[in-house]
Amino acid sequence: MSTTTAAATRALERCAELDRFSSLPHALERVYLSPEHAAANALAATWMQQAGLRTWVDAAGNQWGRVEGRLPGLPALVLGSHLDTVPDAGSYDGMLGVVMAIEVVERLIADGRAADLPFAIEVVGFSDEEGTRFGKALLGSQAVAGTWDDDWWTLRDKHGTTLLDAFTEFGLDPRRVGEAARRPDELTAYLEAHIEQGPYLEAADASLGFVTTIAGARRFSITVHGEARHAGGTPFERRRDALVGASEMVSAIERLAIDDGTIATVGRLEVSPGAVNVIPGRAVFSLDLRGETDEARDGTWLRIETTMRELARARGLRVDVFESHTAPAAPCAPWLQQAVIEGIRATGTASMGGSEPIGLWSRAGHDAMAMAAVSDIGMLFVRCFDGISHHPGEDVREIDVARGIDAFEQAVLKVARVSDAR
Amino acid sequence: MSTTTAAATRALERCAELDRFSSLPHALERVYLSPEHAAANALAATWMQQAGLRTWVDAAGNQWGRVEGRLPGLPALVLGSHLDTVPDAGSYDGMLGVVMAIEVVERLIADGRAADLPFAIEVVGFSDEEGTRFGKALLGSQAVAGTWDDDWWTLRDKHGTTLLDAFTEFGLDPRRVGEAARRPDELTAYLEAHIEQGPYLEAADASLGFVTTIAGARRFSITVHGEARHAGGTPFERRRDALVGASEMVSAIERLAIDDGTIATVGRLEVSPGAVNVIPGRAVFSLDLRGETDEARDGTWLRIETTMRELARARGLRVDVFESHTAPAAPCAPWLQQAVIEGIRATGTASMGGSEPIGLWSRAGHDAMAMAAVSDIGMLFVRCFDGISHHPGEDVREIDVARGIDAFEQAVLKVARVSDAR
Repeated sequence: MSTTTAAATRALERCAELDRFSSLPHALERVYLSPEHAAANALAATWMQQAGLRTWVDAAGNQWGRVEGRLPGLPALVLGSHLDTVPDAGSYDGMLGVVMAIEVVERLIADGRAADLPFAIEVVGFSDEEGTRFGKALLGSQAVAGTWDDDWWTLRDKHGTTLLDAFTEFGLDPRRVGEAARRPDELTAYLEAHIEQGPYLEAADASLGFVTTIAGARRFSITVHGEARHAGGTPFERRRDALVGASEMVSAIERLAIDDGTIATVGRLEVSPGAVNVIPGRAVFSLDLRGETDEARDGTWLRIETTMRELARARGLRVDVFESHTAPAAPCAPWLQQAVIEGIRATGTASMGGSEPIGLWSRAGHDAMAMAAVSDIGMLFVRCFDGISHHPGEDVREIDVARGIDAFEQAVLKVARVSDAR
Repeated sequence: MSTTTAAATRALERCAELDRFSSLPHALERVYLSPEHAAANALAATWMQQAGLRTWVDAAGNQWGRVEGRLPGLPALVLGSHLDTVPDAGSYDGMLGVVMAIEVVERLIADGRAADLPFAIEVVGFSDEEGTRFGKALLGSQAVAGTWDDDWWTLRDKHGTTLLDAFTEFGLDPRRVGEAARRPDELTAYLEAHIEQGPYLEAADASLGFVTTIAGARRFSITVHGEARHAGGTPFERRRDALVGASEMVSAIERLAIDDGTIATVGRLEVSPGAVNVIPGRAVFSLDLRGETDEARDGTWLRIETTMRELARARGLRVDVFESHTAPAAPCAPWLQQAVIEGIRATGTASMGGSEPIGLWSRAGHDAMAMAAVSDIGMLFVRCFDGISHHPGEDVREIDVARGIDAFEQAVLKVARVSDAR
């Protein structure tokens, strides 16, 4: 097939338009239940309506659009990703998948094909995937998956606002969050397009790839307790410096993950009391741990925990570990992997070398992980510049987005053929 | 001489009274130009007045009291320390020296000896020694020493308030700060009593010690620039993780200082963007560096800086160094060291073993460092529990404070004898 770039041009323009809704003056940050979240939902709803979708915001703040298939009320093939961001974010992580889905559906509606499909199509812009505001990821998609946990209501943002209060301030009724949940029998499948956020497609000179499995992540908050003392008067042999201990742990965590072929990141570290002339009495840091399999990831965690306790003991420190998040690996359904593969093949550009589409395991978490609780899932990866993500330098090529829209459209049609054949 | 503990009891009660003036509900923090600062000044002024001193607050917020000697208008022997604290502070660092000075002067006034002295006595409670609020230490005593720097006016606290605005809010006129400066010909000497903030007197079983020199400190703010990227998608070989780099530096700083016999402390470390799933793009940390001599300290700094740049280069990071504070070592004047030694000897308790008074170099900075610019300085150290300071566990024994007041009184009388003999 021949690829035109008009749809991709518009998709990228829309990502740029969404950049306007940021809580920061010179950087992008859009978090759950913020005014920017409401504005992004409203704009996405406008685009969905222009495409011919009926739109609504669900009880957890997710933005939806739907077009019926050959009969009203059929189960839906859901296409989507998220509209929230990390702090100082790029323009594509999440948003690209939403605008690509809208392009695909607009095409299918425009020439009447949507009305022939054996399912409805829904597009979703999830409200919280990154967990930036409340430290807990996938809140939006977990509400949809029916895996919402009432323990989360007391989570607080950095200003002390609870998730419960944030719901109310946003105009949502916390008591109704359960209404966002979808039943498996309402869903044909969930397909998500997303930038790769890694360097592998670029290294293979390929525009697109299909996802085999999404790595499960475990996240921890680790507190190192030492003793705050005067920086001048306390000889080294009398110190129990929580930051020096934490620093040794940060270095060890990197080394152990490299040895194991897993991925570990310490993204936050806070020191108290935090005075220039006081030995740190406490250090608190985050750990994000991922592996291709849950077994690999958990093996690394055991080694990290053992090493941290040894390092702490050697310095008279104490370590407390709190696990804030656990997600098992989420394999993509073989039939949906196949649909994405055929979509990529149809663009004639599996890679510049012409070989077969490239399968990757996703090191990053995605809304699809949550959706796996109620639906088969499949994912299409779009090459991004230099693997950069969670950074303003995040970038994609227009031609890759154009091919991605085509491949995503073809994947939808393949899902229709499989559904019809069942 | 026989020591009674009544004065010490009252001095310790007064330290406890000052604890009431804190910006934190369950911990002590009293910073420059705060409402708590004003309240502590007012209470100290009350005590000074009860002792028979004329009181005033100077143009930099320092609390003063004065009693004339055998003639009005004589140069003053200044006794003092500071009334501000670090965050989550103990009750004695600074405050003990102020209340001990008041006890000594009250005795000298009560029995008429003050009126025979060849100098006036002034007591000062300095307003800012720790630098907690504006990150710049010794602001109060530097105003008195005439070494105030107009560059400081734009320093900001953590709420963004400038030093200039804080002056005005406190009711001080920034244009008049120069009026706080004292001329050398107005000052006979400066004597300061202070808790040791180290473990050496306790290890020697001694109540008191004299200070030989105050270590000069250098303070730096070090910024490590890396690249913020997605924690999942970025393989280790593509990472430029500012926190892992900073952690290696923190470990190296400790090792290098231990090797050199100097003291180095990283008390602050901040990571950005600071999200659990984003590789840190930047880490900023403080470094406080001290040595018995300026040469030793500066030698360690050279090795630290070289090592940091090597570590940064190996990870593709960039390091920026900003020196925020430099103070040369401040030796105590031999004649004032001698006065303090004789004061300690007079208590008959140089140490429990009965040997000569113990001389220590002060690893901590003190207001005396600033005062050295306009006056000879001397310092008396009081043993503290387990060397703990800058921590709520800071503690002193009543008997040591009693001996300290006696020794400080005797030191003042020795200064008088030396002055008379000149």
